[in-house]
Amino acid sequence: MDKPRLQGIFTPNLVPLDQAAEINESELRRYVDWLIERGVHGLYPNGSTGEFTRFTVDERRRIVAIIADQVQGRVPILAGAAEANVRETLSACEYYHSLGVRAVAIVAPFYYKLSPASVYAYFREIGRNTPVDVTLYNIPMFASPIDVPTVQRLSEECEKIVAIKDSSGDIPHMIRMIQAVRPNRPDFSFLTGWDAALMPMLLVGSDGGTNASSGVVPEITRKLYDLTLSGQLEEARKVQYDLVTLFDAMIYSAEFPDGFRAAVELRGFSMGTGRQPLSSDQKTDLATLSRTLQCQLSEHGFSDQPVGGCPPGANNAVDDREVQHIVQNVVAELKRRGLL
Amino acid sequence: MDKPRLQGIFTPNLVPLDQAAEINESELRRYVDWLIERGVHGLYPNGSTGEFTRFTVDERRRIVAIIADQVQGRVPILAGAAEANVRETLSACEYYHSLGVRAVAIVAPFYYKLSPASVYAYFREIGRNTPVDVTLYNIPMFASPIDVPTVQRLSEECEKIVAIKDSSGDIPHMIRMIQAVRPNRPDFSFLTGWDAALMPMLLVGSDGGTNASSGVVPEITRKLYDLTLSGQLEEARKVQYDLVTLFDAMIYSAEFPDGFRAAVELRGFSMGTGRQPLSSDQKTDLATLSRTLQCQLSEHGFSDQPVGGCPPGANNAVDDREVQHIVQNVVAELKRRGLL
Amino acid sequence: MDKPRLQGIFTPNLVPLDQAAEINESELRRYVDWLIERGVHGLYPNGSTGEFTRFTVDERRRIVAIIADQVQGRVPILAGAAEANVRETLSACEYYHSLGVRAVAIVAPFYYKLSPASVYAYFREIGRNTPVDVTLYNIPMFASPIDVPTVQRLSEECEKIVAIKDSSGDIPHMIRMIQAVRPNRPDFSFLTGWDAALMPMLLVGSDGGTNASSGVVPEITRKLYDLTLSGQLEEARKVQYDLVTLFDAMIYSAEFPDGFRAAVELRGFSMGTGRQPLSSDQKTDLATLSRTLQCQLSEHGFSDQPVGGCPPGANNAVDDREVQHIVQNVVAELKRRGLL
Amino acid sequence: MDKPRLQGIFTPNLVPLDQAAEINESELRRYVDWLIERGVHGLYPNGSTGEFTRFTVDERRRIVAIIADQVQGRVPILAGAAEANVRETLSACEYYHSLGVRAVAIVAPFYYKLSPASVYAYFREIGRNTPVDVTLYNIPMFASPIDVPTVQRLSEECEKIVAIKDSSGDIPHMIRMIQAVRPNRPDFSFLTGWDAALMPMLLVGSDGGTNASSGVVPEITRKLYDLTLSGQLEEARKVQYDLVTLFDAMIYSAEFPDGFRAAVELRGFSMGTGRQPLSSDQKTDLATLSRTLQCQLSEHGFSDQPVGGCPPGANNAVDDREVQHIVQNVVAELKRRGLL
Repeated sequence: MDKPRLQGIFTPNLVPLDQAAEINESELRRYVDWLIERGVHGLYPNGSTGEFTRFTVDERRRIVAIIADQVQGRVPILAGAAEANVRETLSACEYYHSLGVRAVAIVAPFYYKLSPASVYAYFREIGRNTPVDVTLYNIPMFASPIDVPTVQRLSEECEKIVAIKDSSGDIPHMIRMIQAVRPNRPDFSFLTGWDAALMPMLLVGSDGGTNASSGVVPEITRKLYDLTLSGQLEEARKVQYDLVTLFDAMIYSAEFPDGFRAAVELRGFSMGTGRQPLSSDQKTDLATLSRTLQCQLSEHGFSDQPVGGCPPGANNAVDDREVQHIVQNVVAELKRRGLL
Repeated sequence: MDKPRLQGIFTPNLVPLDQAAEINESELRRYVDWLIERGVHGLYPNGSTGEFTRFTVDERRRIVAIIADQVQGRVPILAGAAEANVRETLSACEYYHSLGVRAVAIVAPFYYKLSPASVYAYFREIGRNTPVDVTLYNIPMFASPIDVPTVQRLSEECEKIVAIKDSSGDIPHMIRMIQAVRPNRPDFSFLTGWDAALMPMLLVGSDGGTNASSGVVPEITRKLYDLTLSGQLEEARKVQYDLVTLFDAMIYSAEFPDGFRAAVELRGFSMGTGRQPLSSDQKTDLATLSRTLQCQLSEHGFSDQPVGGCPPGANNAVDDREVQHIVQNVVAELKRRGLL
Repeated sequence: MDKPRLQGIFTPNLVPLDQAAEINESELRRYVDWLIERGVHGLYPNGSTGEFTRFTVDERRRIVAIIADQVQGRVPILAGAAEANVRETLSACEYYHSLGVRAVAIVAPFYYKLSPASVYAYFREIGRNTPVDVTLYNIPMFASPIDVPTVQRLSEECEKIVAIKDSSGDIPHMIRMIQAVRPNRPDFSFLTGWDAALMPMLLVGSDGGTNASSGVVPEITRKLYDLTLSGQLEEARKVQYDLVTLFDAMIYSAEFPDGFRAAVELRGFSMGTGRQPLSSDQKTDLATLSRTLQCQLSEHGFSDQPVGGCPPGANNAVDDREVQHIVQNVVAELKRRGLL
Repeated sequence: MDKPRLQGIFTPNLVPLDQAAEINESELRRYVDWLIERGVHGLYPNGSTGEFTRFTVDERRRIVAIIADQVQGRVPILAGAAEANVRETLSACEYYHSLGVRAVAIVAPFYYKLSPASVYAYFREIGRNTPVDVTLYNIPMFASPIDVPTVQRLSEECEKIVAIKDSSGDIPHMIRMIQAVRPNRPDFSFLTGWDAALMPMLLVGSDGGTNASSGVVPEITRKLYDLTLSGQLEEARKVQYDLVTLFDAMIYSAEFPDGFRAAVELRGFSMGTGRQPLSSDQKTDLATLSRTLQCQLSEHGFSDQPVGGCPPGANNAVDDREVQHIVQNVVAELKRRGLL
């Protein structure tokens, strides 16, 4: 109980691939450094943004190994460890523990929609046998939901379960969880995975976020976190508004997480060929989205490697007005091209 | 455009009935006074909490007429005016206008689930012909949803449409609406109908709430509003947490809005026989809930007329610790009796 | 128990309006005759297709009165009788009983989503006090669902409840209801309101249908019913396939029930101005749909009054190949014009 | 195009495990023989009933290898081949092809909910590169839906895609698919995975079923298929009704597919320890369900190895009355024990 609570922004990082859709190790290493330099508090490989279901068991392990090696302890790692069944998941927990990760994150069972009793039984089995701290991962749009009584019971019975990442975006649900768990487990951490509600989630008591947008604009997500925690609410609200716009553009204009892949590419990383095939229409749409985001981000200094005739930005500094401009221009351009 | 924005807590008041399920006018008048005395900023008859669909056309008009007569201008009235079709709704708008209400609130068409184009066409026809200001009412769990582009378009085309009440509880949705509308219509007001998110809704820019719990504990809802607006966030958070607990107990332990009816009865009002028949099991459950809430609220000074052997409370004052105690005790008791 | 079970096709008739959106009585009378002449077994005013929620209390009564007067006992009438609350609904039951209807149909409470206990209590109160036989109306996409135990319990406790109309289109659900009810109530009737599953619903034991398409092509719906009951399954299947195509075109190409209104107009009736306002885009779409359906139906003898330059059809006869052609051509044309 | 259409009942077989939750090869072989002897037309390993997501890549391969070896060509095999991404899935296709399976079945991508364009792109990539025939697998409750235009387009562009298994239970959807595909691809097969609608699905034109209940009572499922195809509809309807009751008991009384596991155990197979952990309450419930089903099935000759004091049945013959009795008794007993 003497470990500090998990806190801050953990980036659910994408995985750069090469043109054959294989893991691009050098680019992944470069991306990790870039994120840490821009202020994210931790990394979260093998999350939904990291497309964990599209990699093999060995690839998932390799991704965490590369990141752990590159991070060298600079920031904590939260490693997605969900595998086909409890035994395989525990085996992954052991491996990630040997790599020195701060904790693993385990999504509730998916495909089958399980009852709360089964979700409880699944995590209890893991919680009792894991060598490493566990973060529950609730993402009801994709996996069996983890309800409040289940979180409460697991937090009381399993000391190794130390946090929940909740991607529902449902604020009363977050409040109910904190009310149910915090009195008995002050060390338990509550992280939100829904970028569009980061500021209000922090204000009602959450400890941080695992936000996909922090993989694209780590400066902005970090800034929003800092402004909110320091009580600069007027400024925080503006940044939150802009983040909603940017988040919506990335999440609703393409198949998740392709909008984020396109945006990370704009920040100067080669993301390669995705593993989910695209129809020719989708490829065209994504190319358009990419060009649009490229020019807008470049214009405001967010692109290290301008592409396609866009003028390079002057610097990487970010102030409030710039954030707003970036977002407004991106969106206006997307609308003009009929993409929003 | 020189009218001030709608702001504050508008109570979607229940309607006291007698034992024959007829409107209990004297009790309604007494309830209205009681609410105003406890600080609500306005009244909102014929909302979902007010069970508008269970009254006849004439009864809905009579409810607003009684309230307008009793209020005598002390607080603004937002009158629910949805009727069978546009013509009937406009006729109601005219009548409520003649009674001097500040605005009407009109829920999107229900039963049929309409497309955004139809929701737009419906409100535009009303917005062009209403003599009184109109608040859009979005409650997607019960009626056709009003999406962001529809709100934006209506706000730009219809000066008489001055606000939206949104009961979705979805904070990013609220942010998107404010972003889309406020630049062109600074007078447009955004009210939230989801009590469990009142504090964060205010913090991201909403102007107030139409919260069913303000009909039960107007002191608490008002206090939450004041604390939030004055930046006392620690205190506000505690009250918001308690309000979530109380709101959950009232909304999930019985058919809506019967939990609220039972609770208002506990504050000393005779609510009579409801219009939706109850099975004998439901009657037993509600009686139990009622007794439980009665004793707890009474204990803490929230019951003017103690019933069933509960000791009367000392006063109506409310401080932070009391709020928390009320709620914890109510919930503990409900759980002990197997009701939660 | 000596009354025969409700059986056959009951048309949930639309209500012709005039240009001021008032009930067009003479056209309604003409439409009723036309339907009876083409073989429907009964009429069902004030259903969802009949837009009951968009009429006033008095208008709903007038619609049934006109139809009862016009029918003069030629076919049974099933009158939609749902009003604001139990008392108002019972008052409507009494009135429709005085008009000599065979039964009323009462949709489960809507707007609020009620639990099975409340749905039961509502119908039990009605079932105990109604002077006329009652058909339960389950349409879970619009109203509170009526589950199997509720139907079973009501059928056992209320002799006056004699049938259920189910618009879920869920065949296992229909089987479960028949299994639960028929042993104790052999007189209880099961009607399906989902045209796209009429043939298989009849084959698993349903007694008939209340099908919106029978208001447009009564000849086809009746034919499907007859073919299925007489075991001509090959022919029935073909007609069912065609009916799916036609039903889909009417139900998905415009706001319900506007596609059906447009199609009835094509059969030679003046439907007037609808009560739900349309945006200009919707008007254009509907006009296009209308012209397309007009020409296709006209070509195959289904239009009594050709409009807009379409050649008149030779006769009203219908054979299998014609049905197929009508439908294929309508759909091909709709696709060509980008409407499907 | 000279291969016959896939037709009949393909059993989505469960996998017997041992007490350590490892694959029980000898029991799997014995189960396969038992199923074939009782008349199923084919086997379908690695389906949802077969819990494919809970096995490793190697285990999935081993399951198909064991079955192929045991079947020795007596019936066709449809092998579930979905893996983490297109490349892995194609690798599985190649392996299963080398084992001589008739076709593979590939579920639409799950976890992420993909758009129709992405579902199309995914299957097109597979359809163009697979060495073995492919059955699409649509199960919208668990995976991204495969809509009608996507099925049509894939059937037209990929000769290797030869069938769809649809577990939606939606009959109009099945009709729409058949209408869209059959004219151009008369060899394309339509299989239903929803046991509660097997008879009506066959009557509207489906070619067969992949029904979990055929793994428990293969005699009954086969009988229903034969009765329906030979036009003995009265008898078929009775069997379908009974199958609904049995199916509901197995699918709704425990976490899927544990009700089926319990029932197969009753037929004399040792199913071992499941891979999804159970809470102690769940274990008790399942034990009760198991004992109940055991006695009932045993009583009627459906249990080869009576357990727990139940008298052994006389034989394995099945007639209509027996089917009905089995089911009624099972359900009555379940209700008596408060399990239904």
